[in-house]
Amino acid sequence: MAEHSNIHLALVHFPVYNKAGEIVVSSVTTLDVHDISRICRTYSVGSFYVVTPLKTQQVLVERIIDHWVKGYGAEYNPTRKESLLKTQMKNSLADVVKDIEDRCGETPLQTVTDARRFPGIVSYGELSAKLGEGHHLLIFGTGWGLERNLIKNADFVLEPIDGAVDYNHLPVRAAIAIILDRLLGRAADG
Amino acid sequence: MAEHSNIHLALVHFPVYNKAGEIVVSSVTTLDVHDISRICRTYSVGSFYVVTPLKTQQVLVERIIDHWVKGYGAEYNPTRKESLLKTQMKNSLADVVKDIEDRCGETPLQTVTDARRFPGIVSYGELSAKLGEGHHLLIFGTGWGLERNLIKNADFVLEPIDGAVDYNHLPVRAAIAIILDRLLGRAADG
Repeated sequence: MAEHSNIHLALVHFPVYNKAGEIVVSSVTTLDVHDISRICRTYSVGSFYVVTPLKTQQVLVERIIDHWVKGYGAEYNPTRKESLLKTQMKNSLADVVKDIEDRCGETPLQTVTDARRFPGIVSYGELSAKLGEGHHLLIFGTGWGLERNLIKNADFVLEPIDGAVDYNHLPVRAAIAIILDRLLGRAADG
Repeated sequence: MAEHSNIHLALVHFPVYNKAGEIVVSSVTTLDVHDISRICRTYSVGSFYVVTPLKTQQVLVERIIDHWVKGYGAEYNPTRKESLLKTQMKNSLADVVKDIEDRCGETPLQTVTDARRFPGIVSYGELSAKLGEGHHLLIFGTGWGLERNLIKNADFVLEPIDGAVDYNHLPVRAAIAIILDRLLGRAADG
């Protein structure tokens, strides 16, 4: 599989909706950090950002990364270390974009994903073709989905995974696995 | 997406290998039960079997299923209830096969999956074409993979997900999401 160092992924915990449709900060699930890091490593993604404004949760995630990348965990489980090397904490999506600009000298095009259907969505094939050039940020929401303005301001909205028209309740970590495979997996490579 | 009630999935906790290559019983991860149930529901799979010979773990899984399907959880979170309706505990893979025979009147063809490469593997396209007929059991191992004889006795061995030749450490729940999407997702439907 090709390197995809121009592809970046953000898991957003604010602003997202809760079950009641209110805008909230969702909690970081530590298992998401591990699972999504491994998935990103499998598809050779450039970076994975965990986004939350909550200081306590930032400290938690940084402690996890530190333990496995530099601490005892690095020796105990080297494949976990390797998966976390490109994982980082950020305060906000704006900070993620700035970090990519600083490191890569380019503003990434932003693609949002959502289990709901929106007008003007791009298909997997269309987005996969675009990903060959420039830097791209794929944005995933937690809780009950990304706040509306994040979706409105994105460059692209990716079509839902579905087919499963009657049940769209995949865990975000499963959705990310499927979406990266469709966009970057061997079939997408041609 | 089509109904796939002739497709059955088993998550096997014995016999599997541990890190040292010994044959062990791995622990049930309750999150696997939830995630994989949701993934199976998304792709309209006929049944999902959690396989372990350990009575204490069987009780744990049955309590989880009961809570969400019949208990307070059914009202609190109906999408979780719906995902668990086709999830069940079994003592062994032989019991899984027997259950499918009893319920469907047919012995399922068995496909194993593994992160390693074996001779005579079938591709996603080949297996996807076969899944249109008869009953099929897709078998996934936990820990460091399914015991060798399970692989030797299977009807088919599915090719690894890879491309990622240098890193094959996906969590089993992520591997199942990707594999079901490749075999049963819209692209596979044609």
